[in-house]
Amino acid sequence: MCGIVGIYDRGNINAANAAYYSLVAMQHRGQESAGIAINNDGIITCYKDMGFVNEVFDERILGLLKGDMAIGHVRYSTAGASFAANAQPIVVKYKNGNLALSHNGSLINADLLRSQLEDDGMIFSTTTDTEVIAALIARNYKGDIVEAIKNTMEIIKGSYALTILTDNKLIGVRDGYGIRPLVLGKLENGYVLASESCALDTVGAQFIRDVRPGEILVIDETGMKSVDYINNLPKKICLFEHIYFARPDSIIDGISMYKARENAGRILAKEQPAIADTVISVPDSGTPAAIGYANESGIPFSIGLIKNRYVGRTFIQPTQSMRELGVKLKLNPLRDNIKGKRVVMVDDSIVRGTTSKKIVQALRDAGASEVHVRVSSPPVISSCYYGIDTPNIEELIGAKNTIEKVRQYIGADSLGYLSIEGILAAVGSKGEGFCTACLNGEYPI
Amino acid sequence: MCGIVGIYDRGNINAANAAYYSLVAMQHRGQESAGIAINNDGIITCYKDMGFVNEVFDERILGLLKGDMAIGHVRYSTAGASFAANAQPIVVKYKNGNLALSHNGSLINADLLRSQLEDDGMIFSTTTDTEVIAALIARNYKGDIVEAIKNTMEIIKGSYALTILTDNKLIGVRDGYGIRPLVLGKLENGYVLASESCALDTVGAQFIRDVRPGEILVIDETGMKSVDYINNLPKKICLFEHIYFARPDSIIDGISMYKARENAGRILAKEQPAIADTVISVPDSGTPAAIGYANESGIPFSIGLIKNRYVGRTFIQPTQSMRELGVKLKLNPLRDNIKGKRVVMVDDSIVRGTTSKKIVQALRDAGASEVHVRVSSPPVISSCYYGIDTPNIEELIGAKNTIEKVRQYIGADSLGYLSIEGILAAVGSKGEGFCTACLNGEYPI
Amino acid sequence: MCGIVGIYDRGNINAANAAYYSLVAMQHRGQESAGIAINNDGIITCYKDMGFVNEVFDERILGLLKGDMAIGHVRYSTAGASFAANAQPIVVKYKNGNLALSHNGSLINADLLRSQLEDDGMIFSTTTDTEVIAALIARNYKGDIVEAIKNTMEIIKGSYALTILTDNKLIGVRDGYGIRPLVLGKLENGYVLASESCALDTVGAQFIRDVRPGEILVIDETGMKSVDYINNLPKKICLFEHIYFARPDSIIDGISMYKARENAGRILAKEQPAIADTVISVPDSGTPAAIGYANESGIPFSIGLIKNRYVGRTFIQPTQSMRELGVKLKLNPLRDNIKGKRVVMVDDSIVRGTTSKKIVQALRDAGASEVHVRVSSPPVISSCYYGIDTPNIEELIGAKNTIEKVRQYIGADSLGYLSIEGILAAVGSKGEGFCTACLNGEYPI
Amino acid sequence: MCGIVGIYDRGNINAANAAYYSLVAMQHRGQESAGIAINNDGIITCYKDMGFVNEVFDERILGLLKGDMAIGHVRYSTAGASFAANAQPIVVKYKNGNLALSHNGSLINADLLRSQLEDDGMIFSTTTDTEVIAALIARNYKGDIVEAIKNTMEIIKGSYALTILTDNKLIGVRDGYGIRPLVLGKLENGYVLASESCALDTVGAQFIRDVRPGEILVIDETGMKSVDYINNLPKKICLFEHIYFARPDSIIDGISMYKARENAGRILAKEQPAIADTVISVPDSGTPAAIGYANESGIPFSIGLIKNRYVGRTFIQPTQSMRELGVKLKLNPLRDNIKGKRVVMVDDSIVRGTTSKKIVQALRDAGASEVHVRVSSPPVISSCYYGIDTPNIEELIGAKNTIEKVRQYIGADSLGYLSIEGILAAVGSKGEGFCTACLNGEYPI
Repeated sequence: MCGIVGIYDRGNINAANAAYYSLVAMQHRGQESAGIAINNDGIITCYKDMGFVNEVFDERILGLLKGDMAIGHVRYSTAGASFAANAQPIVVKYKNGNLALSHNGSLINADLLRSQLEDDGMIFSTTTDTEVIAALIARNYKGDIVEAIKNTMEIIKGSYALTILTDNKLIGVRDGYGIRPLVLGKLENGYVLASESCALDTVGAQFIRDVRPGEILVIDETGMKSVDYINNLPKKICLFEHIYFARPDSIIDGISMYKARENAGRILAKEQPAIADTVISVPDSGTPAAIGYANESGIPFSIGLIKNRYVGRTFIQPTQSMRELGVKLKLNPLRDNIKGKRVVMVDDSIVRGTTSKKIVQALRDAGASEVHVRVSSPPVISSCYYGIDTPNIEELIGAKNTIEKVRQYIGADSLGYLSIEGILAAVGSKGEGFCTACLNGEYPI
Repeated sequence: MCGIVGIYDRGNINAANAAYYSLVAMQHRGQESAGIAINNDGIITCYKDMGFVNEVFDERILGLLKGDMAIGHVRYSTAGASFAANAQPIVVKYKNGNLALSHNGSLINADLLRSQLEDDGMIFSTTTDTEVIAALIARNYKGDIVEAIKNTMEIIKGSYALTILTDNKLIGVRDGYGIRPLVLGKLENGYVLASESCALDTVGAQFIRDVRPGEILVIDETGMKSVDYINNLPKKICLFEHIYFARPDSIIDGISMYKARENAGRILAKEQPAIADTVISVPDSGTPAAIGYANESGIPFSIGLIKNRYVGRTFIQPTQSMRELGVKLKLNPLRDNIKGKRVVMVDDSIVRGTTSKKIVQALRDAGASEVHVRVSSPPVISSCYYGIDTPNIEELIGAKNTIEKVRQYIGADSLGYLSIEGILAAVGSKGEGFCTACLNGEYPI
Repeated sequence: MCGIVGIYDRGNINAANAAYYSLVAMQHRGQESAGIAINNDGIITCYKDMGFVNEVFDERILGLLKGDMAIGHVRYSTAGASFAANAQPIVVKYKNGNLALSHNGSLINADLLRSQLEDDGMIFSTTTDTEVIAALIARNYKGDIVEAIKNTMEIIKGSYALTILTDNKLIGVRDGYGIRPLVLGKLENGYVLASESCALDTVGAQFIRDVRPGEILVIDETGMKSVDYINNLPKKICLFEHIYFARPDSIIDGISMYKARENAGRILAKEQPAIADTVISVPDSGTPAAIGYANESGIPFSIGLIKNRYVGRTFIQPTQSMRELGVKLKLNPLRDNIKGKRVVMVDDSIVRGTTSKKIVQALRDAGASEVHVRVSSPPVISSCYYGIDTPNIEELIGAKNTIEKVRQYIGADSLGYLSIEGILAAVGSKGEGFCTACLNGEYPI
Repeated sequence: MCGIVGIYDRGNINAANAAYYSLVAMQHRGQESAGIAINNDGIITCYKDMGFVNEVFDERILGLLKGDMAIGHVRYSTAGASFAANAQPIVVKYKNGNLALSHNGSLINADLLRSQLEDDGMIFSTTTDTEVIAALIARNYKGDIVEAIKNTMEIIKGSYALTILTDNKLIGVRDGYGIRPLVLGKLENGYVLASESCALDTVGAQFIRDVRPGEILVIDETGMKSVDYINNLPKKICLFEHIYFARPDSIIDGISMYKARENAGRILAKEQPAIADTVISVPDSGTPAAIGYANESGIPFSIGLIKNRYVGRTFIQPTQSMRELGVKLKLNPLRDNIKGKRVVMVDDSIVRGTTSKKIVQALRDAGASEVHVRVSSPPVISSCYYGIDTPNIEELIGAKNTIEKVRQYIGADSLGYLSIEGILAAVGSKGEGFCTACLNGEYPI
């Protein structure tokens, strides 16, 4: 999972600033590495490194990145990726100049394509799918970059949203199923492409519309041009963007992320009611659903857990002797709202179950008389091959256990998940338009 | 404003770890510098530096700080303090060995005392009140450290909570008015002293009680001993701890910070009602009062502003050309909950008014039909001399302007503050026990 | 100009250590970036960054680089190279696995080759010649890596010494003219390839011989195999290695660098005698020639300038107001050996003349009665296309001015350069075997 | 051992720059910490940290240190000093304002004085002798700072050179025996005080004279005033400054450090002749004596060992398996000048003998037929209490062993030290004026 951005702001030599603010706005989509490639009159320069956007870029670096076209990328931490070699954007030289690419998604035929290209003598500097895409575009280039991209899209399979910088164009691409999001915004003198609409708000861009599945958007000095290279595929938007990945203030494919989660909470309250005194959330991600649950059920919402905002990446983990402190370093129960009460605790998902178990225990320690856990999404039972970094299925407690077993493990008085129908209803679907592969094993590709 | 901690954990050579976690829990009380002094069999070592607790300490440093008695300190940024010289704890050598001190508060006669000591030939290495206290204790020492502290407390005037490490004791002290908080907790083999009870939760200590105003608590191998050096002073606890300084999950002098703020919101709803469709908060500090306001008024609470958690200290401020983006980089309106609605926006205070003005505008841009601002504390009209770093009175918009003027400035449809009676009622007082100097100019000392 | 190394130390999992020490020994060949690629049972990992070897690698990083085959690289600072993208070794994936390359030298047909490859659809991630070589090897690979290298050497033109790591081999290559040096040493269980023999000393390897011009050396579990792919070209070793680039304790192509420079000093004394009281050197590079000059002329050698070893890269340059201090921050005259004396000052070259001018003035300020400048190499009058980073010819004071003009500019009483015949005699040549293109414009390729 | 500086440059707001360059020039006197205190119209600010001058200060920091009076300090690494607390200059507030002190030397009655002060109620923030001096000055101050310093000098015993900054004066002090050096130089609008004259050269100051033993020099807006507080003590300058501590281009108490060492080499050649083919030095410190030895004996001087300038502090020490590489990483023999030759190897001292042993072995490995070690100073047999950080006497191989035993240990064919008479003659003394305590146990104080 990653976040991508593209800026075309004609005449504004500091377009990298807008890329920077957009990436900060989408930092939740990837904390491992950050990068910006800038185009200054046809010269493309790229700066990227491991770390948060704020850590990778300072004013000195940003001041060096002059140009009015830029793309950027934040990358999610994935196991096994050594050192900084796979950070994005990647920049390659090809016959027609330079090409910088930022990619969100995952190809399912990348290994095959890579090996075909290698057989033809191609060399690769990274292990990313992105470089495979770049090599195919270079191969397919016969004088028209859009044709080259089109031809490439006919070969690659999987999920992808791309922002591409050429020597004189900014290009946005979304795969034919629309699995990964990409939105388009308007600046006074240009355009912004971004994974989420919150990035548009951050740079003062007006939301225009989502890039359509299978669409190629070309932005250059002649304006914006849309090319729909393929349009007979069913929409298969990733449900997890709506369940918890995207920021609640983003609107993707016409759906407000906040509203989708609040809806999920409301439907959860109907599907999995509870008799209780208060509804609390596991902050921050569980809060919209908890409010929805509370509003639907009539049980008052209150703040039950205080999150320590200073427990960051460099925090020293407690040693064995302090292990029993459990989760309190990060989430401390607010005793006043818990003590003697029957509590509904709403979270957006249960992964391994270990954190849920500790929170339930902390709530009991704080005096909760009952703890009813409600989850605003269905259990994940299958791996994602389109770019969501789900833990190994073996580690997903919900994949291999009955709900009763999970309830026992986490020590709750009751446990209820939202149904697949429920989550689809929450996002306004009647069963179509979304990829539910990880929930029911029905893979679109 | 600062946070202090003291750990006595007999036989646990890693007492610095507990100090570290306590300081992280109280990081909100001071982000400028952090430090820990450790006592290893009578040898006191101190490590401190500018920065967050997580930045100052890493595992390597913490691993060097071996000993079973420790004190710690986080310091609030105050103007004019150059470089790292004034970080705490301070450690001094005196006739009877070493003395480490962590101090939260502010003396009003520090300059006088310092100049008297200098006339006697004393040298000082810092400009802190804390070093003056240390010099007085050294001066007054005649063989009994508790007597020396007692005698010192008779001389110094102002607010102070202290944790003191001697070669074989941990000592906690609170001034006679109890202006600054200090709580006592129990470990299996020892004790914890901390500015806030949330620090006790974090290290698994059992809350025992608040240190009493004017009390000296001495902890050593013989156990804990209490000395009330003076007890005829009226309690004058700082109201600002309750209004916004302390963490909502802390309990100070018997009052839950969360409950105090929710009460403030409830009373505010009665004192300053509004006709509206939704109540939102300015996160995170305004949220408990907003929930109180919503529950009392019956107007539904919703999330109206999304805070970007990644906009930290190293964030690059927007340049002139992006200045109009205003507050959206940090707080983005959640359009769904705002659009077409009459909004009550609850904040815990208005300082210069510039941020409030930007938020009100952002809400209108997001489609709010009316914006009613409600503030869960009275206007600050007078400076604090006891350690709260209020901005210059000149800069406080509420000090010099009528409420109507402030309303016009921030662009709200209506504006209402909580009354002094209201805030006192919220913390359960009938008009006594609290310092209200900054609200009405009645200084206790 | 760069330094390269290759280590094959069978069974020693810490071969990266030997690469590290070799690179430190060759740090004078390049201070811009440093890198090591390690082969651990067929898995190649590379770590590289801007900075000195000591800065790029620490024990933690080096500890992560496990494997018994390694190559390394230090890179000279060259103008215009932005950020870290061009650091070496480079690692590419190709049809038969991985390929890591370290390259010292410069191709003259790189642009042409690159554009031919791009026309076939190749993408490049760097602007280095090295990646072009890698791409050609990948292209030419038909099942035998040595054949692929051979075929590549028939296409590329220019200077190159290469160390190459494949999934199971270490390969050393030297261009047909032998312009760039490469030596071979023996470890108990393996081999070392390095630009200079001082690197062999540093890791305890026994010097075996120079890699021959046009030779491919293949080292793997079956031992070492030599392939002379081409051997009808005249030797054209770069004279500048001997004049000042290589370390004085290195032996390249059978010639001791120290002896060559001492010889240059002796011949200089004969060609450009002076009547003087003392011979001093501009440390450190001018010292061997100064000793030669002193021994030949009978004028006593003494230390005339003390070099401040602590004036490093991060040294703050003096501002305008201190500019007149000139060179004394780095080189301070030793008054006792200068005052009232006629001084011969020996340097290995004069580039822009500005430093020489300052030193001459500093010597006069210290009381020198006469200053006779002697240069142990001929003036550079032509650019190098084979990898020596000569400043723009426009900036070379010796290229465009008569010796008398240069003398006037630097303020010396007399000035004498070594002749081309003299420098060739100093390295034991009768006019053959060396490239003198930059001295007389006769380019071998 | 430390280096100190004081700058008074009227009207030059960037006096800290001159302090910086002076400290870089004296970096050899101390590499552990560096600091500068600046006086800006009576406001004294100090910045100091662990590390080299170049590491502690960058342009940003130096740009913050505005003022026309400054003192600076570099500190030698001494065992046991924890963290950065003892870095200098120290700054204290006392009754008459501020006092910054830089101290080179060591008091022998510091502990006694400290304990007397503590009995009177004094607190100390460091364990340095310097703070004791500051406290005594504060105590003795009765309206005249010079009187206070005078009175303090009557109490403290040991070696000290001090630069002191008051609110409006720069003061230089040298102890009555003149054990530690301090020189005075003239700027156009002010003065410079420094441990060594090379610092004067570096900032373009004209050497005036040495500060006299027992002298107090007061520099302020009225000019410079000298106060000889005591002058009946015999001069006892530290010989080790001349033997190896000071830079060879410094002149201390009228003696050129280079000339003193060359003299030592000449006398050594007479006292300890050798039949040999070449004289080489252990660089850099042994070089002046080696040249003297060569010139006196007629045996030609040559470069026998090449020092790797890049082996710095962060260099990773070889692990056990590479230990046998010994000294070659740092000092590589120059085979051409060694092979088949009888070598005189001149060093300025032998401490533990381990390095000498490795160098002798490396020379033999490089083919030396004989190795004759000559040392240009007598064996150290006694500890120094005046500030030279001699290793524990137990560790000094020359203190407890016969010369023959040392010769056997280091593996030399012969070994000869300079006599005490010889070293005194080398510095131009007839047996007076120098402290020889560490060579013969005759302590002056």
